[in-house]
Amino acid sequence: MEIDEEVCQLAKVPMFSKLDKSKLRLIAFTSEALHYQPGEILFKKGEPADSAFVVLSGEVEVLADTHGEDLVAAVRGANSLIGEMAVITTDPRSATLRARDDVEVLRIGDDVFIKLLTENPEVSLDVMRQLSSKLAESQTAYETLQDKLRASGG
Amino acid sequence: MEIDEEVCQLAKVPMFSKLDKSKLRLIAFTSEALHYQPGEILFKKGEPADSAFVVLSGEVEVLADTHGEDLVAAVRGANSLIGEMAVITTDPRSATLRARDDVEVLRIGDDVFIKLLTENPEVSLDVMRQLSSKLAESQTAYETLQDKLRASGG
Repeated sequence: MEIDEEVCQLAKVPMFSKLDKSKLRLIAFTSEALHYQPGEILFKKGEPADSAFVVLSGEVEVLADTHGEDLVAAVRGANSLIGEMAVITTDPRSATLRARDDVEVLRIGDDVFIKLLTENPEVSLDVMRQLSSKLAESQTAYETLQDKLRASGG
Repeated sequence: MEIDEEVCQLAKVPMFSKLDKSKLRLIAFTSEALHYQPGEILFKKGEPADSAFVVLSGEVEVLADTHGEDLVAAVRGANSLIGEMAVITTDPRSATLRARDDVEVLRIGDDVFIKLLTENPEVSLDVMRQLSSKLAESQTAYETLQDKLRASGG
């Protein structure tokens, strides 16, 4: 993808929409556009993390680590930030992520991502909003499962 | 509590430890120290959110909203940030929080809290770290429950 084209695409991502053009160009220069086929793994739980991703198109599945078949715990669509948790905590990946369909992502290296957060409060707040929403969603999934377990007499 | 005493206490909270004394004094001036007895509710799920809290001492239970008795989904101890999610997303409270024992918290109003985040990247990063850890913890709780449900034949 050409840099100018990538800058235009980045400007459409809500979490970057308030950044000026020079900052968008910097992200475009230092990031990498990647494509995944349906079923392809972006990263696996337990792996070390060296980058965060922004979903540009397609959907990515967050897989729960259960002792049986893969279970889709959540789905992240266009404009979602993924893989940011492990970069922020410097812990290994907490979940396996898999492309549900044709997926296009922007891969942002850990150093660039942390710099982006510390230098741009509006990006930082957006990341906190996304993390908070994911946490609320995870809590609701837990409560639903708890009700199901209770109903099954577990 | 005297302001100087409160500043000393704030400096011991890891998320504030890198702030200079003038900023700590500002937090101390604009925040409020509150005490809760065992079993007392800090806030209820669904309520509008006007503040975040830092636990200074004691433990706070995060209650899951299940159709039965109260279920403790997580426990937050000293130095934990609580109630920040709803302030960041401006959504209603996503869970009910209850004092497990004698609890002392610092109540920070929403405007002051958001200003603290946008003006201090190191505080912001710490909040992102805490949110990420809570999300990883919630995912693990979900996976454990999923395994339990599978074992019970649900």
